[in-house]
Amino acid sequence: MKEKMERFRQLIGEISDLENTMSVLGWDQQVNMPENGAEARSMQLATLAGLAHSKFVGTEMGQTLEALKPFLADLHPDSDEYCLISRTAEEYEKQKKVPTSFVAEFSRVTTMGQQAWEKAKSASDFSKFQPNLEKIIEMRREYAGFFAPYDHVYDPLLDDFEPGLKAADVRRVFEEIKPQQVELLQAIVDKGPVIDDSLLYLHYDEDKQWNFGVDVIEKFGFDFTSGRQDRSIHPFTTEFGHGDVRITTHFDTEFLSMALFGTMHEAGHAMYEQGVSKSLSRTMLHHGASLAVHESQSRMWENLVGRSLPFWKAFYPRLQELFPENLGNVGLNAFYRAVNKVEPSLIRIFADEMTYNLHIMLRFDLELAMMQGDLEAADLPEAWNSKMQEYLGITPPNDAKGVLQDVHWSGGMIGYFTTYALGNLIASMLWEKILEDIPNLESGFEKAEFAPLLDWLRENVHRHGSKYKPMDLVKKVTGKALTAEPYMRYLRSKFGEIYDL
Amino acid sequence: MKEKMERFRQLIGEISDLENTMSVLGWDQQVNMPENGAEARSMQLATLAGLAHSKFVGTEMGQTLEALKPFLADLHPDSDEYCLISRTAEEYEKQKKVPTSFVAEFSRVTTMGQQAWEKAKSASDFSKFQPNLEKIIEMRREYAGFFAPYDHVYDPLLDDFEPGLKAADVRRVFEEIKPQQVELLQAIVDKGPVIDDSLLYLHYDEDKQWNFGVDVIEKFGFDFTSGRQDRSIHPFTTEFGHGDVRITTHFDTEFLSMALFGTMHEAGHAMYEQGVSKSLSRTMLHHGASLAVHESQSRMWENLVGRSLPFWKAFYPRLQELFPENLGNVGLNAFYRAVNKVEPSLIRIFADEMTYNLHIMLRFDLELAMMQGDLEAADLPEAWNSKMQEYLGITPPNDAKGVLQDVHWSGGMIGYFTTYALGNLIASMLWEKILEDIPNLESGFEKAEFAPLLDWLRENVHRHGSKYKPMDLVKKVTGKALTAEPYMRYLRSKFGEIYDL
Repeated sequence: MKEKMERFRQLIGEISDLENTMSVLGWDQQVNMPENGAEARSMQLATLAGLAHSKFVGTEMGQTLEALKPFLADLHPDSDEYCLISRTAEEYEKQKKVPTSFVAEFSRVTTMGQQAWEKAKSASDFSKFQPNLEKIIEMRREYAGFFAPYDHVYDPLLDDFEPGLKAADVRRVFEEIKPQQVELLQAIVDKGPVIDDSLLYLHYDEDKQWNFGVDVIEKFGFDFTSGRQDRSIHPFTTEFGHGDVRITTHFDTEFLSMALFGTMHEAGHAMYEQGVSKSLSRTMLHHGASLAVHESQSRMWENLVGRSLPFWKAFYPRLQELFPENLGNVGLNAFYRAVNKVEPSLIRIFADEMTYNLHIMLRFDLELAMMQGDLEAADLPEAWNSKMQEYLGITPPNDAKGVLQDVHWSGGMIGYFTTYALGNLIASMLWEKILEDIPNLESGFEKAEFAPLLDWLRENVHRHGSKYKPMDLVKKVTGKALTAEPYMRYLRSKFGEIYDL
Repeated sequence: MKEKMERFRQLIGEISDLENTMSVLGWDQQVNMPENGAEARSMQLATLAGLAHSKFVGTEMGQTLEALKPFLADLHPDSDEYCLISRTAEEYEKQKKVPTSFVAEFSRVTTMGQQAWEKAKSASDFSKFQPNLEKIIEMRREYAGFFAPYDHVYDPLLDDFEPGLKAADVRRVFEEIKPQQVELLQAIVDKGPVIDDSLLYLHYDEDKQWNFGVDVIEKFGFDFTSGRQDRSIHPFTTEFGHGDVRITTHFDTEFLSMALFGTMHEAGHAMYEQGVSKSLSRTMLHHGASLAVHESQSRMWENLVGRSLPFWKAFYPRLQELFPENLGNVGLNAFYRAVNKVEPSLIRIFADEMTYNLHIMLRFDLELAMMQGDLEAADLPEAWNSKMQEYLGITPPNDAKGVLQDVHWSGGMIGYFTTYALGNLIASMLWEKILEDIPNLESGFEKAEFAPLLDWLRENVHRHGSKYKPMDLVKKVTGKALTAEPYMRYLRSKFGEIYDL
């Protein structure tokens, strides 16, 4: 077995090197690349993707995996080897089911889809994107077909982002929270005078914002010897292998929250990647468990830590010092309320913590309906607007601020949005467990002490990488299946206090 | 043929994508990478190098080249296709002669060599590096053996950097210029009072230096939509494919020349790469013709342009404006003389235009002697010091400032230094031809007009990439075989005037 395992490690190592290299190319493309470099770059990415894919679904990988399977019985299910063989084998079986010609065609269709979406969005005209979306939905159904039989046509799509999770699981928790969230939001809206957050929209010097953000995430535990921070239009986190995890931040000198919470969010993703065990290097397990678990980490640092009162007790004096002209006369509590202002709004990415999930549930409903064939692409804008009214009580003035606001569908990513909401739920599930284990956690925040939190996350979540399927990991750590209760308790407690409900 | 040519283009395109990707990884390593990223990065580079090499010397490439060779007779020798097939076939034959096991072993030996060299240099103790150098010389001889019979054991090494050039060609021109350069230098030294260049060693703000450099190279014609500039310890130029050529600069706030001429030098390399015909994209011809031709471009922009009086007539007022505290009371002529000060010195990379080649000829002599077996590694420090006395009239106080100053030999690069000197010779050969074609060239510099020069270089040199072997290109453009006469004329004229000889 030793020899076979070594060959397997070598094969998977080379594929992992190719994938990490593609991450470098992608990062550079968004952070540095001059405009005329785009054509050559796209060829490089295509060549590397082709090489990685053909190595992964190649004969040698298939034979090596087959030869290793008999040894699984002798391995402990928590061992690196067991997880590596079994999870790679699952992924291999999945990828083998999808014809290469389909992959190429889908890549072509989604590239065109994104171009069409960009034009449609800037013209605020859904009809320019409708034919592309129709084709994408058709091909997503075809894709699901490769994995038939399934419980729901949405399941194979969701499985790409959340291995093992089913549409029915998501529906169950969403149906549980929807009425409660809508009701809670209504109570806040009814309560009357909105919070004044105009102080966030003053002029904030970019260099000072940068320095403050660096200070915060260093205190969190982001390791700059194993990572770095750069600027990009759309913030993201990427990993190039053990010891090199990078975040990007978008700065807006006229809106403090943009970079401030954006940096904490990406640092949350990055600390997860920085905490994966080195023993999983150069394998497909050297990443977070899933998009939802990843989002649980980014949202935890951004919201449960970064938008908490204890955190600001530690950091607000420093922020006031940096921006006395804007914050010198604003008290801690007024600032805390401003960064936690709740208001139904049109755009998901700017939504507050309270309304965010409503934007996701709306998308989940529409995705299910389209995949089931209950909703035609042509009827999507109307369905969108009516859902916005139902969930948030507002109606978009146009397609750009409504159905066309997100890039995801144009790139074929159906099922992706769901993971954002699940990330919020998982963050709260973990949080209740953490508070059980570390009762004085939040008083530490007041002294800018975050090591207990990061250590807990490293020990219980990070180091495992993707050895376990996401919901198995959640169960293992919290003892519970996916539930929305901790999240609803959190919302009620936090916003009940802020809004004096 | 069309079909075979397409398959060939595809194969060579994939290899080119892998090589360009390795350039991205290498650039990022020197410009951005956090320290803990080194281990993963070295695995990625090794995997990509292995893939590129095995594709290049693989059966399919051999068969495709064989199948294409009969068509060469019908192609014009200046056509892209002809050059691409014939030059790739030559390279294929070369690489096939070197066993993969040798390549791997040499890579290991030179990695260790560089580590030993670093330690030896910082301890200024050659004996710590001597065993490594012995092994490297032994393996370089073994390498040459793969290409026997040869005229000289140095020829196969030189051929890797300057395809087609022989040790005898180099010796001929070096022997021609050596006595003349030594004599000219002696005349300058004898002339008496040295130029005062202390103004270059005052404090120069880094941001202002950066802005001035950007302004200069933009005027030269460096295209920032097809490239960018970053900082690194050791400046270099790298290309990631058509439309993406990057330079790096090292700034020293206490020494103006460092970044100033370094930026012009790298921009010279970069404009060469930016000027290669797009039709050669994704082939091994989409690069400069050789190291020497490359160096002819970088040294031309740095020295023939950047250290000329007409250039400074245009740019000195702006520099004075930026640094009035240092240059406000320094006249144009004093500045011009300072940046052209001649002085025998110990370190090659800081050598002036007049003494630079002497540093190279010394290294060439020692390389030949070691490769021929006339000089043992153990005797190298003494040989070095005695040559320094012979060529430059000075003796290093220790190994660090003598035989250990350069990294090249520790990395196995024997034959590389030679190309620096040849670059100077070729630059002057081209320059005389350019002045014939554009008589008012230098008066244009006074108005910061460089387009005639760049256009000429693009048309006659750049666009060809490496379609032609370097000395064939030089002959094609200048009508002459490699000669040192234009270079000696240039030195005599320029420094005769400055030093009033």
